[in-house]
Amino acid sequence: VAGAHRARADRRQRPAGELVVCDDARAAVEGADFVQESVPERIAVKRELYAAIEPVLGATTVVASSASGLTLTELQSGWRDPARLVLGHPFNPPHLIPLVEVMGNERTDPWAVPWTRAFYESIGKVTIEVRREVPGHVANRLQAALWREAISLVRSGVASVEDVDRAVSAGPGLRWAAMGPTMLFHLGAGEGGLTAFAERYADSFHRWWDDLGDARLDGPTVARLVEGLPAGSVDELAAERDALIAAYVAAAGRIRTPRPDRQPQPGGHG
Amino acid sequence: VAGAHRARADRRQRPAGELVVCDDARAAVEGADFVQESVPERIAVKRELYAAIEPVLGATTVVASSASGLTLTELQSGWRDPARLVLGHPFNPPHLIPLVEVMGNERTDPWAVPWTRAFYESIGKVTIEVRREVPGHVANRLQAALWREAISLVRSGVASVEDVDRAVSAGPGLRWAAMGPTMLFHLGAGEGGLTAFAERYADSFHRWWDDLGDARLDGPTVARLVEGLPAGSVDELAAERDALIAAYVAAAGRIRTPRPDRQPQPGGHG
Repeated sequence: VAGAHRARADRRQRPAGELVVCDDARAAVEGADFVQESVPERIAVKRELYAAIEPVLGATTVVASSASGLTLTELQSGWRDPARLVLGHPFNPPHLIPLVEVMGNERTDPWAVPWTRAFYESIGKVTIEVRREVPGHVANRLQAALWREAISLVRSGVASVEDVDRAVSAGPGLRWAAMGPTMLFHLGAGEGGLTAFAERYADSFHRWWDDLGDARLDGPTVARLVEGLPAGSVDELAAERDALIAAYVAAAGRIRTPRPDRQPQPGGHG
Repeated sequence: VAGAHRARADRRQRPAGELVVCDDARAAVEGADFVQESVPERIAVKRELYAAIEPVLGATTVVASSASGLTLTELQSGWRDPARLVLGHPFNPPHLIPLVEVMGNERTDPWAVPWTRAFYESIGKVTIEVRREVPGHVANRLQAALWREAISLVRSGVASVEDVDRAVSAGPGLRWAAMGPTMLFHLGAGEGGLTAFAERYADSFHRWWDDLGDARLDGPTVARLVEGLPAGSVDELAAERDALIAAYVAAAGRIRTPRPDRQPQPGGHG
């Protein structure tokens, strides 16, 4: 349990952003406006925590769970009143990647999802709304789709692990850090936009889609991927990854047209 | 036909990088060490060009075709001796994206692919080798896999076009501009690397893979995608895209561990 915690008694004394470590989940959430719940993804562990904290939460406190495997419906089963429990799923590494996927459903207070999005955006995150419960929400499904084809290309001998990875990071990956695939294709046909693009390339995409491969993370496949990875220390490579992502985020912040400010409005609470 | 052209007679007078526009394909390629062929992707057009230029090409001149739909085997059928014809497929926008996919096959001179890769890398491109003929080579298949799931998520009401695009550009896209998917997952499990990652997440990936959707670029689907695109002028958005990509490439150049220099060795020509 972490996040925008301000223990009730200390609320006015503590500077914003100060981190306070608590041994007890109840103490951690008491007086908080927003709770980010990121305990291990086992339903029993989640339920035990929810049962402990629900009685001490404020009437308008939002709890956002970072669950990526468990569904919101499953999480709600651990609550007496799940109206202010939402999904708030960040993306790894969460201190660098802006994306947070937010979801509520018919049992969620209508203000809770927009308020949560506004809260995340006010601290520099970028949010999307997941409108229907599916395994993997949005971003993990997109990743899974890409990786499946990447693995399939290696298994079928089209390219090495290193070359498939490089095809992403020196190719479409550089565009995907700028814009999503539909906008990129919209821009790929000049003035005619996506309609012209689809007319021109529908046959190609249909042929590619019909030919895309499958993958399983079985022993031989994992061994082949591991064997194909370039040498290098995990720590050094992770540091290079982080430095690159941080530089990209900073560059995008300088270049992108600013989006309208979103600030959470506590008055919107109910 | 464009590229590293230096007309034989002018070779020593013209500064490197000078662009010379020719009305006649034969004049354009005569005396060139390397020819980038990017005429429209129709086999008849390609064959007509090849028939015209083959007689005037030097004995070690490499011709790289940017074909993305036609196969190398189809292209070779237009040549008397296709030994120095390779695939050299750049990625849009080619003046900003470093990737070039290079392929030869059993009819290609063994030195031609490594020489072509070295040539591209010497002018700042990043190359991969495609080892087997499949529709879409590597990068277009990876793009197709991602877009298929993106479209499916929109069609099934999981998220809006804008939110699916944003999930990419504020999420995994920022990582894919740094490294490819297999390396990223290798780094996602700490010291245990990809083997530990696969043990921990195989069940999740298999569930996601089993649940991924399909797509067709039929009328209603294209209309729904077009309707979901945020407003904005194509020219301004394309300029923003290009500025972002250029900034990312520049940032990566400052941060990334340099790779060993590749220089084409004309001595390796055969």
